[in-house]
Amino acid sequence: MAASQASSRAAVTRGRLLDAAVEAFAVRGFHGTSTRDIAAAAGMSPAAVYVHHRSKEELLFEISRSGHERILSLVRDAVSSATDPPDQLAAVVRTFAAHHARDHTTARIVNYELASLDPAHLEEVRALRRAIERTVLDVVERGADLGVFDVLDPKMTTTALLSLGIDIARWYRDEGTWSPNGVAERYVGFALRIVGARH
Amino acid sequence: MAASQASSRAAVTRGRLLDAAVEAFAVRGFHGTSTRDIAAAAGMSPAAVYVHHRSKEELLFEISRSGHERILSLVRDAVSSATDPPDQLAAVVRTFAAHHARDHTTARIVNYELASLDPAHLEEVRALRRAIERTVLDVVERGADLGVFDVLDPKMTTTALLSLGIDIARWYRDEGTWSPNGVAERYVGFALRIVGARH
Repeated sequence: MAASQASSRAAVTRGRLLDAAVEAFAVRGFHGTSTRDIAAAAGMSPAAVYVHHRSKEELLFEISRSGHERILSLVRDAVSSATDPPDQLAAVVRTFAAHHARDHTTARIVNYELASLDPAHLEEVRALRRAIERTVLDVVERGADLGVFDVLDPKMTTTALLSLGIDIARWYRDEGTWSPNGVAERYVGFALRIVGARH
Repeated sequence: MAASQASSRAAVTRGRLLDAAVEAFAVRGFHGTSTRDIAAAAGMSPAAVYVHHRSKEELLFEISRSGHERILSLVRDAVSSATDPPDQLAAVVRTFAAHHARDHTTARIVNYELASLDPAHLEEVRALRRAIERTVLDVVERGADLGVFDVLDPKMTTTALLSLGIDIARWYRDEGTWSPNGVAERYVGFALRIVGARH
């Protein structure tokens, strides 16, 4: 009982630290942020941070891994939600675009701080990125094989589709006039045009 | 004569400093880079840096302003090179995409470190960004008015077209199999599809 309370308290503290790290990295970048900055933002001592995470890089890795795992599961669920490639692609782009608008702060760190990861961590994250790309590429290739898409270069097309979604995290502003779902609906239209989907 | 030699030497030094700042910002981000790092990379003393630039932010601003001015002039030249909106858009996307692949290191700093600029400098850079967007939006709107493009939302479409090009700077690798011109040609095709250009 006491042990389970302590472990749930530890989970809350870890979550608070991850949130503080996301905010700090977003403002000053990974290299511009110290463990002390993160501790201060979480209302903790630097020593307390090391109880939960071995290093600042460990925090970045947790943010990056969980962010990529989240995207991979969103993308796989979207593909599973339909059977025809145009519907599958629409579902993928809808969820991917809305996510990058809604969670733009985390998404920027996840996508722009890869070079700050340790080699072994980077390899793990790259494997997740390859799985995301593979999932989308499969939809594009199946659509091309079935003749419902008109695609010259499936790999470059997949790169462009994912790139469009990722870059939303750079330009999207909460205070702007476009909602995450509004952007997502337009982007579904752009994606279906990029793959030359038959109407 | 002596004065002109001194001034040309100063220009060379300033260029060396800007190159060193681009490399340093690219590796460690603006906040993770010290004036001392930049001086060391340029083979100069920190004191010598201040002879040429008042601050690290001043260096970032010069990189950002000249980067944006370059893009604005590339985009305007591309529009002037043709008369029909599809040809104009193709020329814009070709030069914009190739530039973001070729100069990806500078382009990343130009696009990802805006928040590190002083307010007055940021305003100046934002004005250049608005001019770039306006130039592309004009082509999209004229194409829609002439009925050669089929566009639901010219502003969102322009955002997506520029976004696709900018994000090349994030994913492009010199050691990859795609050349800047190869990417650019594919992207012209994507752009013409996004705007629903009549064949």
